[in-house]
Amino acid sequence: MIISKDQLTTLEERYRAQLINSVSGFKSANLIGTIDNNGLTNLSIMSSVIHLGSNPPLLGMVFRPHSVPRHTLENILETGVYTINHVNNEIFQKAHQTSARYPKSISEFEACNLTPLFHETFIAPFVQESVIRIAMEYREHQTLKLNETVFLVGEILHIELPEEIVAATGYADLEVANTVCISGLDSYHKTRRLAQLPYAKPV
Amino acid sequence: MIISKDQLTTLEERYRAQLINSVSGFKSANLIGTIDNNGLTNLSIMSSVIHLGSNPPLLGMVFRPHSVPRHTLENILETGVYTINHVNNEIFQKAHQTSARYPKSISEFEACNLTPLFHETFIAPFVQESVIRIAMEYREHQTLKLNETVFLVGEILHIELPEEIVAATGYADLEVANTVCISGLDSYHKTRRLAQLPYAKPV
Repeated sequence: MIISKDQLTTLEERYRAQLINSVSGFKSANLIGTIDNNGLTNLSIMSSVIHLGSNPPLLGMVFRPHSVPRHTLENILETGVYTINHVNNEIFQKAHQTSARYPKSISEFEACNLTPLFHETFIAPFVQESVIRIAMEYREHQTLKLNETVFLVGEILHIELPEEIVAATGYADLEVANTVCISGLDSYHKTRRLAQLPYAKPV
Repeated sequence: MIISKDQLTTLEERYRAQLINSVSGFKSANLIGTIDNNGLTNLSIMSSVIHLGSNPPLLGMVFRPHSVPRHTLENILETGVYTINHVNNEIFQKAHQTSARYPKSISEFEACNLTPLFHETFIAPFVQESVIRIAMEYREHQTLKLNETVFLVGEILHIELPEEIVAATGYADLEVANTVCISGLDSYHKTRRLAQLPYAKPV
């Protein structure tokens, strides 16, 4: 079946969103923890965290247009810091629930029954139930004129993860850590490794 | 275990790359098909394709710094078009092999034993062995000053996929299509759905 760009414009909005969100492939599943200058915490699931570089260690994320309140984005711009916390198979339903439109005065931590974890020297909250947690510092953001989405770049300040999941090569075994992935808008998957392949050389 | 930013700078380069590439979460697995104005095809596996929007239907990708030849990026800038083709469990080894540094005169299609598929009205090659294939048109690109990576945005011109994998909601079942995902630099995974969750509302 071929669906053309013109046909896409005729589709019902939610149907189109599900379809287009599916075709990019599987997505990462992370909870973004933030806090505002009044001490109100916020937690939000995002499927757009991507690797941008290893040195400096940079991760990108995509925010929907800022035409409606975006507490996560606003908090990051306000405080300059945030956390990225892997969604695992034990918390994916709670993580999904953070996508509901809670008002700013309600923290998704409480509303979704996830536990904020604070370090002495870092103001943004981590998710205690996450096995892999990353402290992030804002570096830059840009609004894509094409559709007003915001692409935000941050640098890793530190990584917390169980020592036993890190191989001698530096590979961190997400599968053993039970990190899940996402497809479409709302489908959560665990994984099963097919293979880890050696560095490819021309043959 | 906590690994700080300072400790990251002391790590061996490949180890650090594996670690940082792991911690963003699972990644999409796509083969990007391009052609140059001399008719030479190119195929390259990428793990950075992300959803940017549904209307217009936009997908982003990240390229490593342009300080070494980047045939895929150069071809896209030259011709304005490319294809995105899902990597599935039958072709993931061949797909991985496309990451080897072949010279421009050698097409990864031939070198890695994947079949180019051409449509009459579109010059960039699709991958016949891929079950989900997308025709893309270049829209814009930016170089991130932080690390000279290139973020490229394209618009979907059409989507090819089996009708039977698309649900009544518009969700395209990647798992049934055997699309794989990636973790770290070189680990390929199939998936198993935990659940598809309804639209979240504040409770």
